[in-house]
Amino acid sequence: MLLSRNKIKFLKSLKMKKFRNIHGQYVVEGDRIVRDILFHHPLAIQLLVATGEWLSCNPVNRTAGKMEIAEADVSDFSRISSLETPPDVMAVLDIPRATGDHEDLKNSLTIALDNIRDPGNLGTIIRTADWFGISNILCSNSCADCYNPKVVQASMGALPNVRVQYADLKDVLAKFSGSEDFTVYGTFLDGQPVFNIQPSRKGILVFGNESRGISDDLLPFITSRITIPPGQAGRHHVESLNVASSVAVICAVFDKN
Amino acid sequence: MLLSRNKIKFLKSLKMKKFRNIHGQYVVEGDRIVRDILFHHPLAIQLLVATGEWLSCNPVNRTAGKMEIAEADVSDFSRISSLETPPDVMAVLDIPRATGDHEDLKNSLTIALDNIRDPGNLGTIIRTADWFGISNILCSNSCADCYNPKVVQASMGALPNVRVQYADLKDVLAKFSGSEDFTVYGTFLDGQPVFNIQPSRKGILVFGNESRGISDDLLPFITSRITIPPGQAGRHHVESLNVASSVAVICAVFDKN
Repeated sequence: MLLSRNKIKFLKSLKMKKFRNIHGQYVVEGDRIVRDILFHHPLAIQLLVATGEWLSCNPVNRTAGKMEIAEADVSDFSRISSLETPPDVMAVLDIPRATGDHEDLKNSLTIALDNIRDPGNLGTIIRTADWFGISNILCSNSCADCYNPKVVQASMGALPNVRVQYADLKDVLAKFSGSEDFTVYGTFLDGQPVFNIQPSRKGILVFGNESRGISDDLLPFITSRITIPPGQAGRHHVESLNVASSVAVICAVFDKN
Repeated sequence: MLLSRNKIKFLKSLKMKKFRNIHGQYVVEGDRIVRDILFHHPLAIQLLVATGEWLSCNPVNRTAGKMEIAEADVSDFSRISSLETPPDVMAVLDIPRATGDHEDLKNSLTIALDNIRDPGNLGTIIRTADWFGISNILCSNSCADCYNPKVVQASMGALPNVRVQYADLKDVLAKFSGSEDFTVYGTFLDGQPVFNIQPSRKGILVFGNESRGISDDLLPFITSRITIPPGQAGRHHVESLNVASSVAVICAVFDKN
């Protein structure tokens, strides 16, 4: 099937959050990521759009699931792609339904993001969570949309492996804070050095906004304040680490314990 | 002094590498970063451009160094700024002269970047180096330009604290590889877990390109292959961590030892 005008219009519309919400779908682009998802999550793909050349080099099981396949040429891709260099393949995936139930978080480690606005940071954090086997990310409603093309691209195919849910963090933290064997960690500039604590495998790691940190209204629910100490005490240095870099350091330290 | 047409043309030209090289200068934007540099490195600033309001709220020592000050209005800033939201202050700094001499690297820990192309990654790495007190970064000549506005922005004012030098990495690594009490570390997907090694404070940490890793021609000089192990062995996950996230994890582990 050749890519129709209607499909082009549809694919372009998915660049906008409004239409992603209406259709309940989002777009993933590029050979590496699409092949990874085809291999590990073939049923997640609803529509695969590729050049004839890509299709002839990558035999796709056309009977699997209800995946639709459309052939497109380079000029189509330059119209529908969000990338600087248009790819030769993209896929449309269903946005998982939110359950609204956070019960299952009580037995594992979850990342909570308070007002992370930069799409590159959010995507990188999703990729990091996946790398370290963290299956759940809670985003405040003020965070960037995780199905935004820039987030999807920075996440490098991690989205189908990590459940990202949007919530009022205050409500969720209030529910978990103080539970037995469970810790709500908050990252601050003046916390306890993360290398000195005995990390729990059951907890929530809260990271705050790129410039303002964790909101005041979440502070009462934080039970452990942690930090990544700067090197060479006393020397002048930048005020903070990038938030995605902080997530990577904290996850690595929690993981090795 | 009001910002002249010529100065506007000059400031716009500094968005391009060619003109940064000709003038030996680069631009830093935004209140937070400029105030930080004014405080810690006032002599590095050659030209300060600000709105009248910013100047009236931020008394600048006009006699210090040879700093020139020009007043600009909002419409000027929207013409000369590289930011999405034009700032109310920017500064022009001298690009430090390259010494070409890498002798002093032998007594400390240096980051070497092989073909890091993404400006956001490079800027974040410079910020991370500064946080952990690493004073030197070696970039292969194929890396993004560290004075590119996107790099400067992501580095959050760290550039005057970290010496970034461009070099043929092969030559530099060849010089240091095999030196006594000195280790050339390379980050790979199959190295020794970084938490299991006894990190040296004298060495070079080599990080490779975002998608291709470390170039083949550098491999002979790597004396220790290290990795950041993924969580929950056996589970499917993304292929790798983002390079700036990897730098943060490795630097944090080296720093705490």
